[in-house]
Amino acid sequence: MSRQFVTRIDDRVEPARRVRVRTVRGESPYVRDDNVVVEEPLEIRVARAGEPGPGQPISITMRTPGDDVELALGFLLGEGVIRSARDVASVRECGPDGNVVRVELAAGLALETGRLQRNFYATSSCGVCGKASLAAVEAMLNLERVDARLSITPDLLRSLALQARDAQPVFRDTGGLHAASLFDARGALVATHEDVGRHNALDKLVGAQLLAGTLPLSRCVLLLSGRASFELLQKAAVAGIPVVASIGAPSSLAIEMAERTGIMLAGFLRDESFNVYAHEERLL
Amino acid sequence: MSRQFVTRIDDRVEPARRVRVRTVRGESPYVRDDNVVVEEPLEIRVARAGEPGPGQPISITMRTPGDDVELALGFLLGEGVIRSARDVASVRECGPDGNVVRVELAAGLALETGRLQRNFYATSSCGVCGKASLAAVEAMLNLERVDARLSITPDLLRSLALQARDAQPVFRDTGGLHAASLFDARGALVATHEDVGRHNALDKLVGAQLLAGTLPLSRCVLLLSGRASFELLQKAAVAGIPVVASIGAPSSLAIEMAERTGIMLAGFLRDESFNVYAHEERLL
Repeated sequence: MSRQFVTRIDDRVEPARRVRVRTVRGESPYVRDDNVVVEEPLEIRVARAGEPGPGQPISITMRTPGDDVELALGFLLGEGVIRSARDVASVRECGPDGNVVRVELAAGLALETGRLQRNFYATSSCGVCGKASLAAVEAMLNLERVDARLSITPDLLRSLALQARDAQPVFRDTGGLHAASLFDARGALVATHEDVGRHNALDKLVGAQLLAGTLPLSRCVLLLSGRASFELLQKAAVAGIPVVASIGAPSSLAIEMAERTGIMLAGFLRDESFNVYAHEERLL
Repeated sequence: MSRQFVTRIDDRVEPARRVRVRTVRGESPYVRDDNVVVEEPLEIRVARAGEPGPGQPISITMRTPGDDVELALGFLLGEGVIRSARDVASVRECGPDGNVVRVELAAGLALETGRLQRNFYATSSCGVCGKASLAAVEAMLNLERVDARLSITPDLLRSLALQARDAQPVFRDTGGLHAASLFDARGALVATHEDVGRHNALDKLVGAQLLAGTLPLSRCVLLLSGRASFELLQKAAVAGIPVVASIGAPSSLAIEMAERTGIMLAGFLRDESFNVYAHEERLL
């Protein structure tokens, strides 16, 4: 896929919106204008190569507008629908409010729906058995190991938290966003993406790198602004990221995912300290 | 539905798990045992009245084990599959690891799947058009208004944050949980539920109240430990809760949902202050 096949709606995206709030503090409440983070539905559709029409709806996610093309591509990569930018013939923002992204697959690529059943909401016409869908989650734990020899120093890891805070403007403004930030092996910031949903922020980040042709991210460190969940580790593993650090706590399944895929997982990252939950051999 | 139709697996649920971590602080890292919150998949299945077999898989959610029956019932209420406990003939925990809840609907109740398409992941056999699914989100904004005259004082609201912290043991232990807490009109704590996912915590809370026969919760205040999203406000509206307060920030669509459904929405709740984003007329 080349850049000319990306069609964006030339619209001003609005990650934050001005609202009137009443602040209650002490005895004298006052009214003021404040910024809140925008949350809107995005529908991701997939069409086979050359297929006319709107394509097949794959997911609706509640997201903060902006980088919608990246969000759709990152999501499809994480779900195993595409494996690289070569699997995409074109991608287009559309819909009445720009709340749809249509991805056309490359010629010869089937729409692989097995993995999609993880978050499956059934209709009466679908006969997926329960075992198959729980098994799909199980199968995700058996992802290939990240192919990377990256090791990092404790000092590098400790330097990331501060950098990421500086690079997240909408958060300072609204307090309502999650961020995913990518750093290179020397601790320099590569990219930061934000969203009202933590999985969306990571999808945007991975989708942007997919467009830039930099996958797998085997020389990169991922920083998560909140907690580390199974889903986030799974997306990191698919993108080939060998080191993941989170400001918040990890879950049990996030640790298991990191262990199985060879990812070093750090949590409670602060300027002065952090915990390592998996693959500490990557720490110099 | 009476209590005897609830079948639970008599198993020790494990909301937190002991793991070995390496803590890096200063020059001398050390290894210790720490608790992390458990995250595991739960599959929710629905069967029609008298239907044998496992039923139809409706959703898989990554959740913290415990109160799985409540989680399933709260989820189905929020999605409009059931409207009260009377719509449920039986509910049963099952599956190899207790990671399945099977809900049998009451006689005469159809499995309404239209609303479920919101988070729909399609397979090739399903022909839901994209417009229908974005429209389903739109339709959720047109929920009925909460039928409640509840008004509260600023002091009551300010007293909630501290109470909820005291009532959330696993959070103190692992740092990895979201909580949803219910208070009565005098500020007394009714219930607290926790989960690795914020929507699950609220589903557990609402499901427990549904089992207790206390819906609609028209004399109650809901406190959310994190941010307030569209999805959480939608669930609160379905449960009939007239006042929602969050420790974190609200999103734009959460505010819109609160405005449309008559819910007073407060954010950034602290001991000394908070902001009101919708229906401040409920504040005395």
